Amino acid sequence: MLEELKKRVYEANMLLPQYGLVTFTWGNVSEIDRESGLFAIKPSGVEYDKLSWEDMVIVDLEGRKVEGRYNPSSDTATHVELYKAFTQVGGIVHTHSSYATSWAQAGRSIPCYGTTHADYIYREVPCVRCLTKEEIADGYEENTGHLIVNEFMALGKDPVAVPAVLCKNHGPFAWGKDAHEAVHNAAVLEEVAKMAYRTEMIQPHVQPAPRELQDKHYYRKHGANAYYGQKG
Amino acid sequence: MLEELKKRVYEANMLLPQYGLVTFTWGNVSEIDRESGLFAIKPSGVEYDKLSWEDMVIVDLEGRKVEGRYNPSSDTATHVELYKAFTQVGGIVHTHSSYATSWAQAGRSIPCYGTTHADYIYREVPCVRCLTKEEIADGYEENTGHLIVNEFMALGKDPVAVPAVLCKNHGPFAWGKDAHEAVHNAAVLEEVAKMAYRTEMIQPHVQPAPRELQDKHYYRKHGANAYYGQKG
Amino acid sequence: MLEELKKRVYEANMLLPQYGLVTFTWGNVSEIDRESGLFAIKPSGVEYDKLSWEDMVIVDLEGRKVEGRYNPSSDTATHVELYKAFTQVGGIVHTHSSYATSWAQAGRSIPCYGTTHADYIYREVPCVRCLTKEEIADGYEENTGHLIVNEFMALGKDPVAVPAVLCKNHGPFAWGKDAHEAVHNAAVLEEVAKMAYRTEMIQPHVQPAPRELQDKHYYRKHGANAYYGQKG
Amino acid sequence: MLEELKKRVYEANMLLPQYGLVTFTWGNVSEIDRESGLFAIKPSGVEYDKLSWEDMVIVDLEGRKVEGRYNPSSDTATHVELYKAFTQVGGIVHTHSSYATSWAQAGRSIPCYGTTHADYIYREVPCVRCLTKEEIADGYEENTGHLIVNEFMALGKDPVAVPAVLCKNHGPFAWGKDAHEAVHNAAVLEEVAKMAYRTEMIQPHVQPAPRELQDKHYYRKHGANAYYGQKG
Repeated sequence: MLEELKKRVYEANMLLPQYGLVTFTWGNVSEIDRESGLFAIKPSGVEYDKLSWEDMVIVDLEGRKVEGRYNPSSDTATHVELYKAFTQVGGIVHTHSSYATSWAQAGRSIPCYGTTHADYIYREVPCVRCLTKEEIADGYEENTGHLIVNEFMALGKDPVAVPAVLCKNHGPFAWGKDAHEAVHNAAVLEEVAKMAYRTEMIQPHVQPAPRELQDKHYYRKHGANAYYGQKG
Repeated sequence: MLEELKKRVYEANMLLPQYGLVTFTWGNVSEIDRESGLFAIKPSGVEYDKLSWEDMVIVDLEGRKVEGRYNPSSDTATHVELYKAFTQVGGIVHTHSSYATSWAQAGRSIPCYGTTHADYIYREVPCVRCLTKEEIADGYEENTGHLIVNEFMALGKDPVAVPAVLCKNHGPFAWGKDAHEAVHNAAVLEEVAKMAYRTEMIQPHVQPAPRELQDKHYYRKHGANAYYGQKG
Repeated sequence: MLEELKKRVYEANMLLPQYGLVTFTWGNVSEIDRESGLFAIKPSGVEYDKLSWEDMVIVDLEGRKVEGRYNPSSDTATHVELYKAFTQVGGIVHTHSSYATSWAQAGRSIPCYGTTHADYIYREVPCVRCLTKEEIADGYEENTGHLIVNEFMALGKDPVAVPAVLCKNHGPFAWGKDAHEAVHNAAVLEEVAKMAYRTEMIQPHVQPAPRELQDKHYYRKHGANAYYGQKG
Repeated sequence: MLEELKKRVYEANMLLPQYGLVTFTWGNVSEIDRESGLFAIKPSGVEYDKLSWEDMVIVDLEGRKVEGRYNPSSDTATHVELYKAFTQVGGIVHTHSSYATSWAQAGRSIPCYGTTHADYIYREVPCVRCLTKEEIADGYEENTGHLIVNEFMALGKDPVAVPAVLCKNHGPFAWGKDAHEAVHNAAVLEEVAKMAYRTEMIQPHVQPAPRELQDKHYYRKHGANAYYGQKG
């Protein structure tokens, strides 16, 4: 069942250690089949070198396991909420990648300091607040998803143009049109977080890149007038 | 004698260079067989690529070598004291891993800034004071063990919930139920120390993660109500 | 056509991931054949592990593609302007290498803090301003080239003695007598940027190296009286 | 001639890229045969992957090439001065390793912040001043050697107990009883420099480790009462 989906999700998960985005089992990737409303996700707490594609767990948009011998990732309920609200998103990844997590622990959004960031992410990467005691106590992972969705709505952010978020004192989620692009964006986020950190060390009073430069680079790669790469 | 124990300890020692936790011979791992009261530990100052499992040294809880052609690690007396006091601990590791040692050199405990930390370590990682001149002069390594044990008692810390400590101007010790888990925790500690460092650089006035979030993550993975991984 | 040139440019491009100077496709190298006025450059947005030497694109000094099945790098117009103005330059590279880009994002020129820098680059590595809205809107990549050339003229800098520049909020360009030397200089720049960053962290009020020491090292390796290496 | 010496020096030079202590050709190692008063040293500016042991150059204590098809390292005259003054030293290495060079560029001696440092180096690693215009103009490399020797005498430092030095705005030299130990000490220096940097970031007002702790660790590994390793 959904064999190709499971293989793609397995391969995307295996990119995490290859890209240096995870230590031990600290990450999970999923991809949704929008037709059936089912998604495949990494099982919880299984080491990367013991995973095979058959171990991916199939879950529905109620968060119920549909197939698989393992429990799905403990963050499954967050993936569910993001898939339900962000209907153009096809793949989601959560990591504890070192620089992005450090920004999350610092409770700061990542300003757009340059074109590396602007090539992929429109304006800053937002950092959402901690959950309240009540939100933690009852449905922690589901509420994490709600919070991200609500913040994106409140900030008027399009999840296609801003394919990543930081959860305060926790770490990043990233997404994309499929699992592979989600992991690609998680790697971009980590690189952008690293350079933003160093930028502030070199120049403590640095300002974000001019908006017109941000726009130029974002729209050079995205939308109807893109001319980067081999499109058109 | 204790062949399986020596093999496990050898393999755990060999994880140290693989995880990037040691330079040259700057680390040692041991594991105890509680039934016999004997533990296996790395010999002192032998290069990792010249070690074999037969080189592990067997020591008793008086710190006397029971078997082995090499001298045991110069830190053996510290391991002895920790095994005697922390009866639920089965494996111990000492490294000079770069970030954890930097916190130790700075003389600071590592605050819990996020869920990566809280997933493994309950509250901060304590940094214990330097030994006095007298404690250094007479029984340095043994007194290092006493100091750690006394500090844990004074602070009311459970070594199972706080599987690591920093020794001021020296470096970290970590432990676990066996040698493998001890090394796992040493790697977690290094990652946590790295991210805490960067967190403070990004936000100098940062506060620890809210206690309810720390508790949520710790108890999601530990204790009777844990639901992370494939338990239950 | 220009088969050897394309092979050299391919190989120089492949050095970028080997030297750790690029993430994904974020870089491009070219080399010019001054006799024909044609240069070979990496295609836009193609992954490194899918490139072959035949994929290099041949472009003329009007920026027109002369040969190749792919679109040339989106930064081609910048290369064109640099080749037209810097007539002693034979190879050009653009990267988003992490430390150099962080200095660019900080909007700061890299001071010459030591002999590592002075061995290759005479005085500081200049950081040129952002383009204006007008310059961005119409001919962004070409104007980037103009700006670099104009700044070098205004500062009286010889591009042979200063083989690199930072573009504010963007990243570095480096160059040399051919593609290989350009990439070599990009790697030097990254190392120099890294050490300058750390130097300022260690000593916030640090001054550049004395001019006589800078001169000594630069002229030990360059010009008529050079005695480094196997020259003469 | 001196075939074994050349092989050892070749192997010690090849450890530099393996230990991550050099970029390109930025380093050189030598070892002296005290009986003949000749030393072998890396040729100047030859890439590591093109070196063979036969390429090592034999030089006498007047700095004259005795054998070899290449020019010796441009820093040969510094090695000569160190060998002449530091008669217990058998091997010398110069690198531009990143952290040690950053301290040198900052013009700061490296304080002894912990036992990792004290295990190998007694008290701080001194940073010597820049050469004057006159010293640079006439006999730069030889004067670098003189300066190091004079500073060690003025500071009352024993080169056996302090096997490394930083040259302001330049980089480190390290040494040992032979080429291999010199490179070992250069790697220790780099690790110590890295951790000292991070220590000061974590705790800006940090003080050196207590002297009694420094002494304990230094004498645990050195001198008549050493008990680290397999000695005695």
